[in-house]
Amino acid sequence: MPDFAEPLARLISEFKHLPGIGQKSAQRLAFHVLRGSREDAQQLAQAILDVKDKLGLCTVCNNISDGEICQFCRDPNRDPRFICVVEEPHNILGIETTRQFSGTYHVLHGALSPLRGIGPEQLKLKGLIDRIGEGKAEEVIVATNPTVEGETTAVYLSKLLKPLGVRVSRIAMGIPVGSELEFADEVTITKALEGRREM
Amino acid sequence: MPDFAEPLARLISEFKHLPGIGQKSAQRLAFHVLRGSREDAQQLAQAILDVKDKLGLCTVCNNISDGEICQFCRDPNRDPRFICVVEEPHNILGIETTRQFSGTYHVLHGALSPLRGIGPEQLKLKGLIDRIGEGKAEEVIVATNPTVEGETTAVYLSKLLKPLGVRVSRIAMGIPVGSELEFADEVTITKALEGRREM
Repeated sequence: MPDFAEPLARLISEFKHLPGIGQKSAQRLAFHVLRGSREDAQQLAQAILDVKDKLGLCTVCNNISDGEICQFCRDPNRDPRFICVVEEPHNILGIETTRQFSGTYHVLHGALSPLRGIGPEQLKLKGLIDRIGEGKAEEVIVATNPTVEGETTAVYLSKLLKPLGVRVSRIAMGIPVGSELEFADEVTITKALEGRREM
Repeated sequence: MPDFAEPLARLISEFKHLPGIGQKSAQRLAFHVLRGSREDAQQLAQAILDVKDKLGLCTVCNNISDGEICQFCRDPNRDPRFICVVEEPHNILGIETTRQFSGTYHVLHGALSPLRGIGPEQLKLKGLIDRIGEGKAEEVIVATNPTVEGETTAVYLSKLLKPLGVRVSRIAMGIPVGSELEFADEVTITKALEGRREM
């Protein structure tokens, strides 16, 4: 590996720590910063620090927030009767892009995983139970990932929350739209069959 | 496009300005920074600023350098009889990875392009002429890109430097090693034929 001047080598190494960035991409990014203006570099550096310094978790739903309460929880147009439970804050994004859900969210910050030693006490569940206790929620939509961990979490949530008097539903699993049966694995096809709807 | 908290949206937007980073990658990088430690973010931010603040151009060859003179120019093991001319500092990297060249470099910081209004006065040529004037150089290897601009620059350099009493050579163009003739364009094949060597 050829030598770079130390600050350049260090920036390349820093970029390589980011997900999906290999040696070549890191070099390209570093040279881009080097060629750009001091002001651009300053803005990028400041933005990196600001996400650590100015963001926290919403005290209601644990979403990432720049205030005490996140934009979804403080929006009076969001329907508090529906709470969509997700594993991570970025999962909210995928649901929001559909523009089909106008309820509120709850972020668990993880999923149950006995193998990795993650039990219910590691998940942010208490706030969810408190919210249901307030009596506004009618349905909890469990949108954890369709993985072993996500499914385990969904089953756990269902057993935990139903006795509190709310409906608990699970997002549908099946063949992705635009895909072909040919490319779907047998578990997905099984789920698609189980979840079939009369038309 | 769904809302993110402002600092997160700003970081995503900053990452999107980097080459090869689209919306999805930028989100992934931003969430990575957000999930990481304050210390990691600080190191990344500092590395970005340092490449702007601590690096300058080598006063001999115009390569990027953390001192007045770059690591190649101050290395007594590099042979000053050979000067390899490249368009940009990162081109040096490609040549260094071969470990076949032990001479010195000269970075033009561009290539002639009449269309984009880039003439000889925009290139860092004076230092090169001065170095040749010192009498140590025997051969100038022109390793500008095999593009119209790079070729134009190579022809210009040849005419400019030969009268100063140095050999001027051009790196070979031809079929890339490991590729197949089938996939080479006609200009490359023409260059490969022109540059054929007896075996």
